[in-house]
Amino acid sequence: MSNPIDFYFDFSSPYGYFGAVEIGKLAEKYGRQVNWHPILLGPIFKNLGTNSLVLIPVKGEYSRHDMGRTARFHNIFFKEPGNFPIGSQVAARAVLWAQERHPEKAVNLILTLYSAYFTEDIDISVPANVLRIAADLGIDQGELEAALGTQEIKDKLRAATEGAAQKGVFGSPFVIVDGEPFWGFDRYPQLEAFLKNGKI
Amino acid sequence: MSNPIDFYFDFSSPYGYFGAVEIGKLAEKYGRQVNWHPILLGPIFKNLGTNSLVLIPVKGEYSRHDMGRTARFHNIFFKEPGNFPIGSQVAARAVLWAQERHPEKAVNLILTLYSAYFTEDIDISVPANVLRIAADLGIDQGELEAALGTQEIKDKLRAATEGAAQKGVFGSPFVIVDGEPFWGFDRYPQLEAFLKNGKI
Repeated sequence: MSNPIDFYFDFSSPYGYFGAVEIGKLAEKYGRQVNWHPILLGPIFKNLGTNSLVLIPVKGEYSRHDMGRTARFHNIFFKEPGNFPIGSQVAARAVLWAQERHPEKAVNLILTLYSAYFTEDIDISVPANVLRIAADLGIDQGELEAALGTQEIKDKLRAATEGAAQKGVFGSPFVIVDGEPFWGFDRYPQLEAFLKNGKI
Repeated sequence: MSNPIDFYFDFSSPYGYFGAVEIGKLAEKYGRQVNWHPILLGPIFKNLGTNSLVLIPVKGEYSRHDMGRTARFHNIFFKEPGNFPIGSQVAARAVLWAQERHPEKAVNLILTLYSAYFTEDIDISVPANVLRIAADLGIDQGELEAALGTQEIKDKLRAATEGAAQKGVFGSPFVIVDGEPFWGFDRYPQLEAFLKNGKI
């Protein structure tokens, strides 16, 4: 049995969204499972002394242009959200909880949250929006709401983010498979070559 | 007549080297000329408050790995130089001078300098190495050496860098064609689609 693909992402990251849309197809094509890791880039950037691309002058303007172009180039639905970037902890915590309580629904929750934010401009930093999206997938809204308020789930996301940082993750999407790291959706051609040939 | 492709690069940038190796083929394929713009990223990074990727912890280690992998993926000869990154002003000034005095040799000088640095580990921050490479291409060593010492050529590089920054250039390679900007060697597939279809 091949090792799974570790897929790290921040819900505020458009390239993470593109990567999430495509990683499942790639995994299926090469007989791999995907371990989905929602993380927060904020604390990681802070530790490294870097910043979100879109918040850097000039680079930010270019990046906003590049996002839409990259989506068109890959035929991925995309609309830049009105509120961008956002804090993504609520969405990330919801997924961590779902992965434990409703593992069969967790991937669908990830993809639905991402597409709500990046194609329908639904602000997934707003808890009510996350709860509604989860409820639409048959997840009990009351249970999720209660879970989101606990220290346990906050600690879990903090630990997930720290664990990712320890593995060298510093961006979104970030893929690690068989110990080989790939940063960015633009490394998917290299990721695919690696999955195909076992080396690169 | 189609507009030329403006190709901006720093001689210390491995992705700039990959981009330089490939831009000529792309231009020829789609009937474009290339305007080659050697610039210094240092002052641009300073203004934006960013830094060279390889100098950021964790990101730097990843990038060094990614360079070699990217070269293998694209079948480009590459060996990480012992002294890296370097100050690239001598090489850039030599090219600016050659573009005026020996325009027919300037592209060859660019590609030879890049390949000396990134395949043979010849340190092109050392003036003697730049002079020897130029001499091998039939450029008068004494004339070039004299030119490199002038305020005129220093001002020229400063103006070239400032002009690039004003056009929104903030990395290497950076391509602008028909007003459309492309940052990074990993955007060449999108650049090619744009050259092919006139839009993207």
